[in-house]
Amino acid sequence: MVRPADPEAESTGSDDLAVTHDRLLGGRVALAQPMHGYRAALDPVLLAAAVPLRGGERALELGCGAGAAALCLLARVPEGRVSGLEAQPALVRLARSNAATNDVGDRFEVYAGDLLDPPSDVASGAFDHAFANPPYLAAGTADAPSDPLRAAANVEGAARLPDWISALARATRRGGTVTVIHRADRLPELLSEMGRVAGALVVCPLWPAAGKPAKRVLVQGRVGVGGPATLATGLTLHSDGGFTLEARAILEDVVPLKLR
Amino acid sequence: MVRPADPEAESTGSDDLAVTHDRLLGGRVALAQPMHGYRAALDPVLLAAAVPLRGGERALELGCGAGAAALCLLARVPEGRVSGLEAQPALVRLARSNAATNDVGDRFEVYAGDLLDPPSDVASGAFDHAFANPPYLAAGTADAPSDPLRAAANVEGAARLPDWISALARATRRGGTVTVIHRADRLPELLSEMGRVAGALVVCPLWPAAGKPAKRVLVQGRVGVGGPATLATGLTLHSDGGFTLEARAILEDVVPLKLR
Repeated sequence: MVRPADPEAESTGSDDLAVTHDRLLGGRVALAQPMHGYRAALDPVLLAAAVPLRGGERALELGCGAGAAALCLLARVPEGRVSGLEAQPALVRLARSNAATNDVGDRFEVYAGDLLDPPSDVASGAFDHAFANPPYLAAGTADAPSDPLRAAANVEGAARLPDWISALARATRRGGTVTVIHRADRLPELLSEMGRVAGALVVCPLWPAAGKPAKRVLVQGRVGVGGPATLATGLTLHSDGGFTLEARAILEDVVPLKLR
Repeated sequence: MVRPADPEAESTGSDDLAVTHDRLLGGRVALAQPMHGYRAALDPVLLAAAVPLRGGERALELGCGAGAAALCLLARVPEGRVSGLEAQPALVRLARSNAATNDVGDRFEVYAGDLLDPPSDVASGAFDHAFANPPYLAAGTADAPSDPLRAAANVEGAARLPDWISALARATRRGGTVTVIHRADRLPELLSEMGRVAGALVVCPLWPAAGKPAKRVLVQGRVGVGGPATLATGLTLHSDGGFTLEARAILEDVVPLKLR
Protein backbone atom coordinates (compact mmCIF):
# COMPACT_ATOMS: atom_id res chain seq x y z
CA MET A 1 0.00 0.00 0.00
CA VAL A 2 1.00 3.58 -0.34
CA ARG A 3 2.81 5.18 2.55
CA PRO A 4 1.98 8.78 3.43
CA ALA A 5 3.34 11.20 0.89
CA ASP A 6 6.38 13.27 1.60
CA PRO A 7 5.00 16.68 2.50
CA GLU A 8 7.76 18.34 0.50
CA ALA A 9 6.38 17.87 -2.95
CA GLU A 10 8.70 19.01 -5.67
CA SER A 11 8.66 19.95 -9.31
CA THR A 12 10.35 17.72 -11.89
CA GLY A 13 11.50 20.72 -13.84
CA SER A 14 10.54 22.02 -17.22
CA ASP A 15 7.05 20.56 -17.30
CA ASP A 16 6.47 21.74 -13.76
CA LEU A 17 4.80 18.50 -12.57
CA ALA A 18 4.27 18.50 -8.82
CA VAL A 19 5.09 15.08 -7.40
CA THR A 20 4.96 13.27 -4.09
CA HIS A 21 7.34 10.56 -2.89
CA ASP A 22 5.62 7.38 -1.78
CA ARG A 23 6.62 3.84 -0.88
CA LEU A 24 5.02 0.60 -2.04
CA LEU A 25 5.50 -3.06 -1.06
CA GLY A 26 6.55 -2.45 2.50
CA GLY A 27 9.02 0.20 1.44
CA ARG A 28 10.77 -1.85 -1.25
CA VAL A 29 9.61 0.45 -4.06
CA ALA A 30 10.11 4.22 -4.03
CA LEU A 31 7.61 5.96 -6.24
CA ALA A 32 7.57 9.60 -7.25
CA GLN A 33 4.12 10.22 -8.69
CA PRO A 34 2.03 13.21 -9.70
CA MET A 35 0.41 14.96 -6.80
CA HIS A 36 -2.77 15.77 -8.69
CA GLY A 37 -3.15 13.13 -11.41
CA TYR A 38 -3.70 9.40 -11.12
CA ARG A 39 -2.14 8.17 -7.89
CA ALA A 40 -1.10 4.57 -7.34
CA ALA A 41 -2.90 2.88 -4.50
CA LEU A 42 -3.80 -0.81 -4.32
CA ASP A 43 -4.60 -1.57 -7.94
CA PRO A 44 -1.14 -1.50 -9.55
CA VAL A 45 0.32 -3.47 -6.65
CA LEU A 46 -2.32 -6.19 -7.02
CA LEU A 47 -1.90 -6.17 -10.79
CA ALA A 48 1.85 -6.68 -10.50
CA ALA A 49 1.34 -9.47 -7.97
CA ALA A 50 -0.83 -11.31 -10.51
CA VAL A 51 1.64 -11.29 -13.42
CA PRO A 52 3.39 -14.69 -13.48
CA LEU A 53 6.72 -13.29 -14.66
CA ARG A 54 9.70 -15.55 -14.07
CA GLY A 55 13.43 -14.93 -14.23
CA GLY A 56 14.67 -14.53 -17.79
CA GLU A 57 11.25 -13.52 -19.10
CA ARG A 58 10.06 -10.18 -20.46
CA ALA A 59 6.83 -8.41 -19.62
CA LEU A 60 5.16 -5.32 -21.07
CA GLU A 61 2.93 -2.85 -19.31
CA LEU A 62 0.67 -0.66 -21.42
CA GLY A 63 -0.04 2.70 -19.85
CA CYS A 64 2.65 2.32 -17.22
CA GLY A 65 2.20 5.80 -15.78
CA ALA A 66 4.92 6.60 -13.27
CA GLY A 67 5.84 2.91 -13.14
CA ALA A 68 4.09 1.68 -9.99
CA ALA A 69 3.08 -1.76 -11.25
CA ALA A 70 6.25 -2.34 -13.25
CA LEU A 71 8.47 -1.46 -10.29
CA CYS A 72 6.47 -3.73 -7.97
CA LEU A 73 6.81 -6.58 -10.46
CA LEU A 74 10.56 -6.08 -10.73
CA ALA A 75 10.84 -6.00 -6.95
CA ARG A 76 9.29 -9.46 -6.86
CA VAL A 77 11.20 -10.88 -9.85
CA PRO A 78 14.77 -9.58 -9.79
CA GLU A 79 15.77 -11.64 -12.83
CA GLY A 80 12.88 -10.42 -14.98
CA ARG A 81 12.66 -7.49 -17.37
CA VAL A 82 9.76 -5.10 -17.92
CA SER A 83 9.01 -2.64 -20.69
CA GLY A 84 6.46 0.09 -20.28
CA LEU A 85 4.56 2.18 -22.80
CA GLU A 86 3.23 5.55 -21.73
CA ALA A 87 1.66 8.31 -23.80
CA GLN A 88 2.06 11.23 -21.41
CA PRO A 89 5.58 12.71 -21.72
CA ALA A 90 5.64 13.91 -18.12
CA LEU A 91 4.88 10.38 -16.90
CA VAL A 92 7.47 8.85 -19.20
CA ARG A 93 10.12 11.07 -17.61
CA LEU A 94 8.83 10.23 -14.14
CA ALA A 95 8.85 6.50 -14.84
CA ARG A 96 12.46 6.66 -16.10
CA SER A 97 13.44 8.66 -13.05
CA ASN A 98 11.70 6.11 -10.80
CA ALA A 99 13.52 3.28 -12.57
CA ALA A 100 16.84 4.95 -11.75
CA THR A 101 15.84 5.68 -8.16
CA ASN A 102 14.98 2.02 -7.64
CA ASP A 103 18.18 0.95 -9.37
CA VAL A 104 16.37 -1.03 -12.06
CA GLY A 105 17.15 1.23 -14.99
CA ASP A 106 18.69 -1.71 -16.87
CA ARG A 107 15.57 -3.88 -16.38
CA PHE A 108 12.77 -1.33 -16.86
CA GLU A 109 12.65 0.30 -20.27
CA VAL A 110 10.05 3.02 -20.77
CA TYR A 111 8.77 3.82 -24.25
CA ALA A 112 6.96 7.03 -25.09
CA GLY A 113 4.06 6.33 -27.37
CA ASP A 114 0.44 5.55 -28.01
CA LEU A 115 -0.94 2.04 -27.86
CA LEU A 116 -2.97 2.75 -31.01
CA ASP A 117 0.30 3.27 -32.88
CA PRO A 118 2.92 1.59 -30.72
CA PRO A 119 6.67 1.47 -31.30
CA SER A 120 7.67 -1.64 -33.23
CA ASP A 121 9.39 -3.16 -30.18
CA VAL A 122 6.14 -2.99 -28.26
CA ALA A 123 4.06 -4.51 -31.05
CA SER A 124 6.61 -7.27 -31.62
CA GLY A 125 4.65 -10.16 -30.15
CA ALA A 126 7.83 -11.13 -28.32
CA PHE A 127 6.74 -10.55 -24.73
CA ASP A 128 6.06 -13.44 -22.39
CA HIS A 129 3.48 -11.41 -20.48
CA ALA A 130 1.58 -8.17 -20.97
CA PHE A 131 -0.51 -6.33 -18.42
CA ALA A 132 -2.45 -3.14 -17.92
CA ASN A 133 -4.58 -1.09 -15.58
CA PRO A 134 -6.64 0.67 -18.29
CA PRO A 135 -8.76 3.78 -17.71
CA TYR A 136 -11.69 2.61 -15.65
CA LEU A 137 -14.44 4.76 -17.14
CA ALA A 138 -15.79 4.27 -20.64
CA ALA A 139 -15.61 7.28 -22.89
CA GLY A 140 -18.78 9.28 -22.70
CA THR A 141 -19.92 7.88 -19.37
CA ALA A 142 -18.33 10.56 -17.20
CA ASP A 143 -17.23 14.12 -17.28
CA ALA A 144 -13.53 14.03 -17.86
CA PRO A 145 -11.51 15.51 -15.00
CA SER A 146 -10.02 18.86 -15.95
CA ASP A 147 -6.51 17.71 -15.03
CA PRO A 148 -5.18 16.07 -18.21
CA LEU A 149 -3.10 13.40 -16.41
CA ARG A 150 -6.07 12.43 -14.30
CA ALA A 151 -8.32 12.40 -17.33
CA ALA A 152 -5.95 10.15 -19.28
CA ALA A 153 -5.73 7.66 -16.42
CA ASN A 154 -9.40 7.59 -15.49
CA VAL A 155 -11.42 8.04 -18.68
CA GLU A 156 -10.88 6.24 -21.97
CA GLY A 157 -9.58 8.46 -24.73
CA ALA A 158 -9.23 7.45 -28.36
CA ALA A 159 -8.15 3.99 -27.20
CA ARG A 160 -11.13 2.06 -25.88
CA LEU A 161 -11.06 -1.17 -23.89
CA PRO A 162 -11.04 -3.36 -27.04
CA ASP A 163 -7.97 -1.45 -28.25
CA TRP A 164 -6.18 -2.03 -24.97
CA ILE A 165 -6.91 -5.76 -25.08
CA SER A 166 -5.89 -6.06 -28.73
CA ALA A 167 -2.64 -4.20 -28.11
CA LEU A 168 -1.83 -6.39 -25.11
CA ALA A 169 -2.43 -9.53 -27.16
CA ARG A 170 -0.40 -8.34 -30.15
CA ALA A 171 2.57 -7.68 -27.89
CA THR A 172 2.52 -11.18 -26.43
CA ARG A 173 3.84 -14.49 -27.74
CA ARG A 174 1.41 -17.34 -28.26
CA GLY A 175 0.78 -18.98 -24.91
CA GLY A 176 1.99 -15.93 -23.00
CA THR A 177 -0.29 -14.25 -20.51
CA VAL A 178 -2.33 -11.07 -20.65
CA THR A 179 -3.47 -9.67 -17.29
CA VAL A 180 -5.85 -6.77 -16.74
CA ILE A 181 -7.24 -5.19 -13.60
CA HIS A 182 -10.49 -3.32 -14.08
CA ARG A 183 -13.71 -2.25 -12.44
CA ALA A 184 -15.90 -5.25 -11.74
CA ASP A 185 -18.88 -3.42 -13.20
CA ARG A 186 -17.25 -3.71 -16.63
CA LEU A 187 -16.70 -7.47 -16.38
CA PRO A 188 -19.02 -8.39 -19.28
CA GLU A 189 -17.15 -6.20 -21.75
CA LEU A 190 -13.79 -7.18 -20.31
CA LEU A 191 -14.47 -10.92 -20.59
CA SER A 192 -15.94 -10.53 -24.03
CA GLU A 193 -12.83 -8.74 -25.25
CA MET A 194 -10.39 -11.01 -23.44
CA GLY A 195 -12.19 -14.02 -24.88
CA ARG A 196 -11.50 -12.68 -28.37
CA VAL A 197 -7.73 -12.95 -27.97
CA ALA A 198 -7.05 -15.40 -25.17
CA GLY A 199 -8.28 -18.63 -23.62
CA ALA A 200 -8.12 -20.38 -20.28
CA LEU A 201 -9.30 -17.11 -18.76
CA VAL A 202 -9.15 -16.75 -15.01
CA VAL A 203 -11.52 -14.31 -13.32
CA CYS A 204 -10.25 -13.29 -9.89
CA PRO A 205 -12.69 -11.06 -7.97
CA LEU A 206 -11.19 -8.55 -5.54
CA TRP A 207 -13.69 -8.33 -2.68
CA PRO A 208 -13.43 -5.14 -0.60
CA ALA A 209 -14.66 -7.21 2.37
CA ALA A 210 -16.45 -10.50 2.93
CA GLY A 211 -20.04 -10.34 1.73
CA LYS A 212 -19.53 -7.21 -0.41
CA PRO A 213 -19.74 -7.21 -4.21
CA ALA A 214 -16.39 -6.99 -5.95
CA LYS A 215 -15.25 -3.50 -6.94
CA ARG A 216 -12.26 -4.66 -8.95
CA VAL A 217 -11.53 -7.79 -10.88
CA LEU A 218 -8.35 -9.30 -12.29
CA VAL A 219 -8.70 -11.23 -15.53
CA GLN A 220 -5.84 -13.23 -17.00
CA GLY A 221 -5.68 -15.38 -20.10
CA ARG A 222 -3.26 -17.14 -22.41
CA VAL A 223 -2.90 -15.57 -25.83
CA GLY A 224 -4.03 -17.63 -28.80
CA VAL A 225 -4.74 -20.68 -26.68
CA GLY A 226 -8.10 -22.31 -25.99
CA GLY A 227 -9.41 -23.69 -22.76
CA PRO A 228 -12.24 -23.29 -20.28
CA ALA A 229 -12.46 -20.31 -17.96
CA THR A 230 -12.06 -20.37 -14.19
CA LEU A 231 -14.07 -18.24 -11.79
CA ALA A 232 -11.64 -18.18 -8.90
CA THR A 233 -12.44 -17.60 -5.26
CA GLY A 234 -10.63 -14.27 -5.42
CA LEU A 235 -8.99 -12.13 -2.76
CA THR A 236 -10.73 -10.42 0.14
CA LEU A 237 -8.92 -7.19 0.91
CA HIS A 238 -10.25 -5.95 4.24
CA SER A 239 -11.53 -7.35 7.51
CA ASP A 240 -11.90 -5.85 10.95
CA GLY A 241 -10.87 -2.42 9.74
CA GLY A 242 -7.53 -3.51 8.29
CA PHE A 243 -6.15 -5.65 5.51
CA THR A 244 -6.67 -9.39 5.60
CA LEU A 245 -3.58 -11.51 6.14
CA GLU A 246 -3.67 -12.61 2.49
CA ALA A 247 -3.89 -9.02 1.25
CA ARG A 248 -1.16 -7.82 3.57
CA ALA A 249 1.20 -10.55 2.38
CA ILE A 250 0.71 -9.39 -1.21
CA LEU A 251 0.78 -5.65 -0.51
CA GLU A 252 3.68 -5.57 1.92
CA ASP A 253 5.60 -8.84 1.69
CA VAL A 254 5.77 -9.23 -2.11
CA VAL A 255 3.85 -12.53 -2.11
CA PRO A 256 2.51 -13.32 -5.58
CA LEU A 257 -1.26 -13.30 -6.06
CA LYS A 258 -2.25 -16.78 -7.20
CA LEU A 259 -5.30 -16.20 -9.34
CA ARG A 260 -6.72 -19.71 -9.24
CA MET B 1 -32.31 -30.97 -3.01
CA VAL B 2 -33.53 -34.20 -4.52
CA ARG B 3 -34.83 -36.82 -2.14
CA PRO B 4 -33.94 -40.45 -2.85
CA ALA B 5 -35.83 -41.77 -5.82
CA ASP B 6 -38.73 -44.08 -5.39
CA PRO B 7 -37.32 -47.52 -6.06
CA GLU B 8 -40.41 -48.42 -8.05
CA ALA B 9 -39.66 -46.63 -11.24
CA GLU B 10 -42.45 -46.79 -13.75
CA SER B 11 -43.10 -46.31 -17.41
CA THR B 12 -45.18 -43.39 -18.67
CA GLY B 13 -46.73 -45.54 -21.33
CA SER B 14 -46.48 -45.43 -25.08
CA ASP B 15 -43.00 -43.87 -25.22
CA ASP B 16 -41.82 -46.26 -22.55
CA LEU B 17 -39.88 -43.64 -20.55
CA ALA B 18 -38.71 -45.01 -17.24
CA VAL B 19 -39.14 -42.39 -14.54
CA THR B 20 -38.37 -41.94 -10.86
CA HIS B 21 -40.41 -39.98 -8.35
CA ASP B 22 -38.42 -37.39 -6.45
CA ARG B 23 -39.13 -34.48 -4.13
CA LEU B 24 -37.66 -30.98 -4.25
CA LEU B 25 -37.83 -27.96 -1.91
CA GLY B 26 -38.27 -29.89 1.30
CA GLY B 27 -40.97 -32.06 -0.19
CA ARG B 28 -43.09 -29.22 -1.59
CA VAL B 29 -42.52 -30.25 -5.22
CA ALA B 30 -43.14 -33.77 -6.51
CA LEU B 31 -41.12 -34.48 -9.62
CA ALA B 32 -41.37 -37.46 -11.91
CA GLN B 33 -38.27 -37.38 -14.06
CA PRO B 34 -36.49 -39.69 -16.47
CA MET B 35 -34.43 -42.35 -14.77
CA HIS B 36 -31.69 -42.28 -17.36
CA GLY B 37 -31.69 -38.80 -18.91
CA TYR B 38 -30.96 -35.43 -17.34
CA ARG B 39 -31.89 -35.55 -13.66
CA ALA B 40 -32.70 -32.47 -11.64
CA ALA B 41 -30.35 -31.87 -8.74
CA LEU B 42 -29.31 -28.49 -7.36
CA ASP B 43 -29.17 -26.41 -10.51
CA PRO B 44 -32.86 -26.00 -11.39
CA VAL B 45 -33.70 -25.31 -7.75
CA LEU B 46 -31.08 -22.56 -7.55
CA LEU B 47 -32.18 -21.18 -10.91
CA ALA B 48 -35.79 -20.97 -9.79
CA ALA B 49 -34.73 -19.30 -6.53
CA ALA B 50 -33.00 -16.57 -8.53
CA VAL B 51 -35.94 -15.59 -10.76
CA PRO B 52 -37.58 -12.48 -9.22
CA LEU B 53 -41.11 -13.46 -10.23
CA ARG B 54 -43.86 -11.70 -8.33
CA GLY B 55 -47.57 -12.36 -8.05
CA GLY B 56 -49.43 -11.44 -11.22
CA GLU B 57 -46.33 -11.74 -13.40
CA ARG B 58 -45.52 -14.29 -16.08
CA ALA B 59 -42.26 -16.13 -16.56
CA LEU B 60 -40.97 -18.39 -19.33
CA GLU B 61 -38.55 -21.26 -19.04
CA LEU B 62 -36.78 -22.41 -22.19
CA GLY B 63 -35.91 -26.09 -22.15
CA CYS B 64 -38.06 -26.82 -19.13
CA GLY B 65 -37.49 -30.57 -19.21
CA ALA B 66 -39.75 -32.34 -16.74
CA GLY B 67 -40.49 -28.99 -15.07
CA ALA B 68 -38.19 -28.98 -12.05
CA ALA B 69 -37.29 -25.28 -12.09
CA ALA B 70 -40.76 -24.11 -13.14
CA LEU B 71 -42.43 -26.11 -10.37
CA CYS B 72 -39.97 -24.80 -7.76
CA LEU B 73 -40.67 -21.25 -8.91
CA LEU B 74 -44.43 -21.75 -8.68
CA ALA B 75 -44.04 -23.26 -5.21
CA ARG B 76 -42.37 -20.02 -4.11
CA VAL B 77 -44.73 -17.66 -5.97
CA PRO B 78 -48.27 -19.02 -5.78
CA GLU B 79 -49.73 -16.01 -7.61
CA GLY B 80 -47.31 -16.22 -10.51
CA ARG B 81 -47.61 -18.04 -13.82
CA VAL B 82 -44.94 -19.95 -15.73
CA SER B 83 -44.78 -21.15 -19.32
CA GLY B 84 -42.27 -23.76 -20.41
CA LEU B 85 -40.93 -24.66 -23.82
CA GLU B 86 -39.53 -28.14 -24.34
CA ALA B 87 -38.46 -29.86 -27.55
CA GLN B 88 -38.52 -33.49 -26.40
CA PRO B 89 -42.10 -34.86 -26.61
CA ALA B 90 -41.56 -37.32 -23.77
CA LEU B 91 -40.47 -34.48 -21.48
CA VAL B 92 -43.38 -32.29 -22.54
CA ARG B 93 -45.75 -35.05 -21.45
CA LEU B 94 -43.86 -35.53 -18.22
CA ALA B 95 -43.88 -31.79 -17.44
CA ARG B 96 -47.64 -31.63 -18.00
CA SER B 97 -48.13 -34.65 -15.81
CA ASN B 98 -45.95 -33.06 -13.10
CA ALA B 99 -47.97 -29.84 -13.33
CA ALA B 100 -51.14 -31.83 -12.65
CA THR B 101 -49.55 -33.81 -9.82
CA ASN B 102 -48.49 -30.57 -8.12
CA ASP B 103 -51.92 -29.06 -8.74
CA VAL B 104 -50.54 -26.14 -10.75
CA GLY B 105 -51.89 -27.19 -14.14
CA ASP B 106 -53.63 -23.82 -14.49
CA ARG B 107 -50.43 -21.87 -13.76
CA PHE B 108 -47.83 -23.95 -15.66
CA GLU B 109 -48.38 -24.17 -19.39
CA VAL B 110 -45.99 -26.40 -21.31
CA TYR B 111 -45.39 -25.80 -25.02
CA ALA B 112 -43.86 -28.39 -27.30
CA GLY B 113 -41.41 -26.77 -29.62
CA ASP B 114 -37.92 -25.70 -30.58
CA LEU B 115 -36.42 -22.44 -29.36
CA LEU B 116 -35.02 -21.85 -32.85
CA ASP B 117 -38.59 -21.75 -34.17
CA PRO B 118 -40.71 -21.10 -31.11
CA PRO B 119 -44.50 -20.93 -30.91
CA SER B 120 -45.75 -17.36 -31.34
CA ASP B 121 -46.84 -17.14 -27.69
CA VAL B 122 -43.29 -17.90 -26.59
CA ALA B 123 -41.70 -15.36 -28.91
CA SER B 124 -44.21 -12.68 -27.96
CA GLY B 125 -41.94 -10.48 -25.87
CA ALA B 126 -44.70 -10.38 -23.28
CA PHE B 127 -43.02 -12.25 -20.42
CA ASP B 128 -41.83 -10.42 -17.32
CA HIS B 129 -39.02 -12.91 -16.79
CA ALA B 130 -37.34 -15.66 -18.80
CA PHE B 131 -34.89 -18.23 -17.54
CA ALA B 132 -33.00 -21.30 -18.62
CA ASN B 133 -30.55 -23.99 -17.66
CA PRO B 134 -29.08 -24.54 -21.13
CA PRO B 135 -27.01 -27.56 -22.14
CA TYR B 136 -23.72 -27.14 -20.35
CA LEU B 137 -21.35 -28.47 -22.99
CA ALA B 138 -20.63 -26.65 -26.23
CA ALA B 139 -21.32 -28.62 -29.39
CA GLY B 140 -18.23 -30.44 -30.54
CA THR B 141 -16.45 -30.32 -27.19
CA ALA B 142 -17.71 -33.65 -25.91
CA ASP B 143 -18.92 -36.98 -27.15
CA ALA B 144 -22.67 -36.81 -26.97
CA PRO B 145 -24.18 -39.33 -24.56
CA SER B 146 -25.92 -42.15 -26.42
CA ASP B 147 -29.17 -41.54 -24.52
CA PRO B 148 -31.00 -38.90 -26.57
CA LEU B 149 -32.64 -37.17 -23.57
CA ARG B 150 -29.31 -36.94 -21.80
CA ALA B 151 -27.63 -35.70 -24.96
CA ALA B 152 -30.25 -32.98 -25.46
CA ALA B 153 -29.88 -31.76 -21.89
CA ASN B 154 -26.10 -31.92 -21.66
CA VAL B 155 -24.69 -31.04 -25.09
CA GLU B 156 -25.76 -28.19 -27.31
CA GLY B 157 -27.59 -29.24 -30.45
CA ALA B 158 -28.54 -26.96 -33.30
CA ALA B 159 -29.28 -24.23 -30.76
CA ARG B 160 -26.05 -22.82 -29.37
CA LEU B 161 -25.66 -20.58 -26.34
CA PRO B 162 -26.17 -17.37 -28.37
CA ASP B 163 -29.47 -18.80 -29.66
CA TRP B 164 -30.63 -19.56 -26.13
CA ILE B 165 -29.81 -16.03 -24.96
CA SER B 166 -31.45 -14.43 -27.99
CA ALA B 167 -34.61 -16.50 -27.55
CA LEU B 168 -34.78 -15.63 -23.84
CA ALA B 169 -34.47 -11.93 -24.63
CA ARG B 170 -37.03 -12.00 -27.45
CA ALA B 171 -39.57 -13.55 -25.10
CA THR B 172 -39.15 -10.85 -22.48
CA ARG B 173 -40.55 -7.36 -22.18
CA ARG B 174 -38.18 -4.41 -22.02
CA GLY B 175 -36.90 -4.13 -18.45
CA GLY B 176 -37.85 -7.71 -17.65
CA THR B 177 -35.21 -10.12 -16.43
CA VAL B 178 -33.34 -12.94 -18.11
CA THR B 179 -31.68 -15.44 -15.77
CA VAL B 180 -29.33 -18.26 -16.79
CA ILE B 181 -27.45 -20.85 -14.77
CA HIS B 182 -24.40 -22.28 -16.50
CA ARG B 183 -20.99 -23.78 -15.99
CA ALA B 184 -18.62 -21.18 -14.60
CA ASP B 185 -16.01 -22.23 -17.16
CA ARG B 186 -18.21 -20.72 -19.88
CA LEU B 187 -18.57 -17.36 -18.14
CA PRO B 188 -16.78 -15.34 -20.85
CA GLU B 189 -19.14 -16.51 -23.61
CA LEU B 190 -22.14 -16.26 -21.31
CA LEU B 191 -21.39 -12.67 -20.29
CA SER B 192 -20.57 -11.68 -23.82
CA GLU B 193 -23.92 -12.99 -25.06
CA MET B 194 -25.92 -11.66 -22.12
CA GLY B 195 -24.30 -8.27 -22.62
CA ARG B 196 -25.66 -8.22 -26.17
CA VAL B 197 -29.28 -8.26 -25.04
CA ALA B 198 -29.37 -7.06 -21.45
CA GLY B 199 -27.79 -4.60 -19.04
CA ALA B 200 -27.27 -4.23 -15.31
CA LEU B 201 -25.94 -7.79 -15.36
CA VAL B 202 -25.44 -9.54 -12.05
CA VAL B 203 -22.89 -12.34 -11.87
CA CYS B 204 -23.56 -14.62 -8.90
CA PRO B 205 -20.90 -17.32 -8.42
CA LEU B 206 -22.02 -20.60 -6.89
CA TRP B 207 -19.07 -21.79 -4.81
CA PRO B 208 -19.05 -25.53 -4.06
CA ALA B 209 -17.24 -24.69 -0.81
CA ALA B 210 -15.28 -21.78 0.61
CA GLY B 211 -11.97 -21.35 -1.20
CA LYS B 212 -12.94 -23.48 -4.21
CA PRO B 213 -13.41 -22.06 -7.72
CA ALA B 214 -17.04 -21.72 -8.77
CA LYS B 215 -18.45 -24.62 -10.79
CA ARG B 216 -21.71 -22.90 -11.64
CA VAL B 217 -22.68 -19.31 -12.10
CA LEU B 218 -25.99 -17.49 -12.24
CA VAL B 219 -26.16 -14.47 -14.53
CA GLN B 220 -29.16 -12.18 -14.60
CA GLY B 221 -29.80 -9.03 -16.60
CA ARG B 222 -32.55 -6.63 -17.61
CA VAL B 223 -33.56 -6.81 -21.24
CA GLY B 224 -32.91 -3.75 -23.36
CA VAL B 225 -31.74 -1.70 -20.42
CA GLY B 226 -28.27 -0.30 -19.79
CA GLY B 227 -26.33 -0.20 -16.57
CA PRO B 228 -23.12 -1.39 -14.98
CA ALA B 229 -22.58 -5.02 -14.02
CA THR B 230 -22.31 -6.38 -10.49
CA LEU B 231 -19.98 -9.20 -9.48
CA ALA B 232 -21.85 -10.40 -6.42
CA THR B 233 -20.43 -12.28 -3.49
CA GLY B 234 -22.35 -15.38 -4.53
CA LEU B 235 -23.57 -18.41 -2.63
CA THR B 236 -21.39 -21.01 -0.94
CA LEU B 237 -23.15 -24.36 -1.14
CA HIS B 238 -21.30 -26.71 1.19
CA SER B 239 -19.41 -26.58 4.46
CA ASP B 240 -18.49 -29.24 6.98
CA GLY B 241 -19.82 -32.02 4.80
CA GLY B 242 -23.33 -30.57 4.45
CA PHE B 243 -25.12 -27.61 2.98
CA THR B 244 -24.46 -24.14 4.36
CA LEU B 245 -27.32 -22.50 6.20
CA GLU B 246 -27.85 -20.12 3.27
CA ALA B 247 -27.97 -22.97 0.76
CA ARG B 248 -30.29 -25.06 2.91
CA ALA B 249 -32.73 -22.17 3.27
CA ILE B 250 -32.93 -21.88 -0.52
CA LEU B 251 -32.99 -25.60 -1.27
CA GLU B 252 -35.43 -26.70 1.43
CA ASP B 253 -37.24 -23.66 2.78
CA VAL B 254 -38.07 -21.87 -0.50
CA VAL B 255 -36.09 -18.76 0.41
CA PRO B 256 -35.33 -16.67 -2.72
CA LEU B 257 -31.72 -16.36 -3.83
CA LYS B 258 -30.85 -12.67 -3.73
CA LEU B 259 -28.24 -12.31 -6.44
CA ARG B 260 -26.72 -9.04 -5.28
